[in-house]
Amino acid sequence: MNLRTPGPIPVPDDILESMSWQMINHRGPEYEDLLYRTTEGVKRVFETENDLYIMTSSGTGAMEAAIVNTLSPGDKVVNVCVGVFGERFGEIAELFGAEVISLDFPYGSAADPDTIRQTLNDNPDVKAVLVTHNETSTGVTNDLQAIASVVKGEFDLLLLVDGISSVCSIPISTDAWGCDVVATASQKGWMLPPGLAFISFSERAWEAHEQAKMPRYYFDMAMYKRYYKIGQPPYTPAISVMFGLDVALKRILDEGMGSVYERHATIGKLTRDGVKDLGLTLFPDESVASDTVTAVNVPDGVDGGKFVGALRDDHSVVLTGGQGSLAGKIFRIGHLGYTTEQEIYEVLSAIKQVLD
Amino acid sequence: MNLRTPGPIPVPDDILESMSWQMINHRGPEYEDLLYRTTEGVKRVFETENDLYIMTSSGTGAMEAAIVNTLSPGDKVVNVCVGVFGERFGEIAELFGAEVISLDFPYGSAADPDTIRQTLNDNPDVKAVLVTHNETSTGVTNDLQAIASVVKGEFDLLLLVDGISSVCSIPISTDAWGCDVVATASQKGWMLPPGLAFISFSERAWEAHEQAKMPRYYFDMAMYKRYYKIGQPPYTPAISVMFGLDVALKRILDEGMGSVYERHATIGKLTRDGVKDLGLTLFPDESVASDTVTAVNVPDGVDGGKFVGALRDDHSVVLTGGQGSLAGKIFRIGHLGYTTEQEIYEVLSAIKQVLD
Repeated sequence: MNLRTPGPIPVPDDILESMSWQMINHRGPEYEDLLYRTTEGVKRVFETENDLYIMTSSGTGAMEAAIVNTLSPGDKVVNVCVGVFGERFGEIAELFGAEVISLDFPYGSAADPDTIRQTLNDNPDVKAVLVTHNETSTGVTNDLQAIASVVKGEFDLLLLVDGISSVCSIPISTDAWGCDVVATASQKGWMLPPGLAFISFSERAWEAHEQAKMPRYYFDMAMYKRYYKIGQPPYTPAISVMFGLDVALKRILDEGMGSVYERHATIGKLTRDGVKDLGLTLFPDESVASDTVTAVNVPDGVDGGKFVGALRDDHSVVLTGGQGSLAGKIFRIGHLGYTTEQEIYEVLSAIKQVLD
Repeated sequence: MNLRTPGPIPVPDDILESMSWQMINHRGPEYEDLLYRTTEGVKRVFETENDLYIMTSSGTGAMEAAIVNTLSPGDKVVNVCVGVFGERFGEIAELFGAEVISLDFPYGSAADPDTIRQTLNDNPDVKAVLVTHNETSTGVTNDLQAIASVVKGEFDLLLLVDGISSVCSIPISTDAWGCDVVATASQKGWMLPPGLAFISFSERAWEAHEQAKMPRYYFDMAMYKRYYKIGQPPYTPAISVMFGLDVALKRILDEGMGSVYERHATIGKLTRDGVKDLGLTLFPDESVASDTVTAVNVPDGVDGGKFVGALRDDHSVVLTGGQGSLAGKIFRIGHLGYTTEQEIYEVLSAIKQVLD
C-alpha cells in the first residue's frame, strides 16, 4: 500500500519497530531521560528556546491548547484563514468565547501580509493573530515569516501558529520569527504514527496565560510545565509513540534540518511537475504550493470519489479527496515525512492508468 | 523489568507486535472496519448498548469529556471522592464552572451509599453525581452498583463514572446499573499501551449534552457521533494503539469477561495475602480493597522513596509510591491486565529482600 495522505504517512521500519518496545513507568527515571531528550530534540526542529510540551492528542488538541491557554472569552482575535484548517482554528477560538475576525483568503491562495496589516490597523483592539502555516486542505503554504514580521514586528501581538503539516517539513524559525505558540503533530513530517502533539510556548505566551480565562484542564500548559520540572508528563502519555519519537529524532537530527527541508522541497517540485506532465492542473497558485501536500484539480468529467477509490482498490495508492466545499473537486497527494521519488512515480503512474 | 504500576502494565507480545504495523488511512474503508469492530468489542466489555467513542488522550481527557459534554457552568454536582483521582474529577468540574459539593470519604475507605443518599436528600437541586469506580491512589473499589442504585434508582440523576482503573478488570454493567457516562483508558485492564480513552454515552447523557454549555471542541462527543456515522474519527487517532486494541479485544472476548474478572480477583487476593504474609499491612480496609492495585503501608522506619527505588534498581521491580498526602506513606502494586502469579511472587520476594 502506497499511503500518500497528508498524514499519517508510511513510517520507516526502525521507527515502527520501536513502537513494539515494552512499556516503562512514565513516572520513573527511565521516562524522565526519554522526556528530556525528546523535548530537546523537538525544540531543535522548532528552532526554539521557548518551553515545549509533548501532549497525547491529535493536532487539533494542540490547536485547542494554543487558544485556551492564551485567551479569555471576549478577546478579539484575527484568524488568518486560507482553508478548512484555518476555519477550524477560528471555530475553536469562537467556541471558547473569543470574538473572531475571520480574514478569509480564497481557497488556493496564500494569506497576504498587506491585508493582514490593514486589518490590524483597522482593529487596534486585537489581542492575537491565528495563522495556519501550511494549509493541508488546499495545499498552500503561507509566508509565515512575512506574516510574523507584521504581527510581531509592527503590531507586537500574540502570534498563534497551526504548524501541524509544516513543522519538520517546511522551514520554521519559531524564535527568530517571533511565533509565541506553534502547534504540530507526530504523524506529519516527524515520520511517526499519530498520537502525540507538540506545542511551543513563549514567555509572551506565559504572560498571556496568566490572564487567560478560558477553561482548560487536560490541555492546561501550566500542568505540563509543573510536571516537566520533575521529569514527568502530567497525564499518562502515549509511551509507544514517545519511543518512536526518540528514534525519529535521531534520524532527523543526524540528517540535519537543511537536508530534511531540501528533501521536502525536491519531492514537492517532483510531484507538481509530474502532475502537470500528466496534463492535470494544480489547485493552488503554484507560487504558494505546499511542499508537504499537492492539491490537484479533478479533471472535468471525472468523479473525484470514484477516482480516489480506483487508485486505492486497483493500484494500492491511497490519496485523499477534498474536504468541505472542495469534496469531489480536488484530490491530494501527501509527500511529507520520508517520501521517495519512486513512491511518487508510482502514484503518478497509477493516476495515469486510472485516468486513461 | 517487572513493571507493576497501576498502568501502564506489561503488554503481551502479540499486542506489542501489532503496534508495529504500518499506518493506514484513518479516513478510508480499512479504518472504518477497524473502528466499528473495536467499538463493538469495547461496548461488550462495558456491557452497554449506549454510544461509545474512542478518543486519543489519557484517561484524564475522558474525565474532562464526561463533564464538559453534560454540564453547564453553575450546575450543582456531587463529587463522591475517596482519593486523588476523585479529587481530580471534582477539580475538572469546578474548573469548568460547576458548583461542586465534595463528598469526601477518608482515604482507604469506600464511599457509603447511605451518605450519598443523605447528601442528595439535602441537595434537591443536584444535577449529576461524579463517582470513581476504582480509586487508584488508595487501592479501593467503590460499590458502584449500590451507588448507582441510589443515584439513578432513587434520585434519577445523571451518573458520571471514572472507570479508568476498573473497566475490563472489575465487573461493571454500564446499562444495567444505569451509568450515563463511563470513562476509561487503554493502559489499564485492556493490556494496551496508553494513548486511547474510551467513553460510553447514554441517551440521558445526550439529553444533557443538548443543554450543556461548558465549552468543548476536541472532546465534544457530538463530533465523535457525527463522524462515527461515516466510519471515521473526527481527528487523527493513535492508529497503532487501535491495532493493539483490535488484537487485545480478540484475546479478551475469547477468554470471556467472567474469566477476566476472576483472574483479577484471584491475583488481587494472592497479592494481598502475600503482602500480609510478609508482615506488612494493607492501606485500605480489606473489605473494599481493589483487585487492580494493592496499596500497602510503608513500615515504620522505612523511607518509602528509597524503598521503591531499591526495588527498581536492585530487583527490577517497578512499583509506585503514594500520591499527594500519601507520598512516602504507602506503596502500590499494580496487578491489572495480564498479570501472572509468578510476577507477583517475584514482587513479594523482592519486597522481602529489600526490607530484610
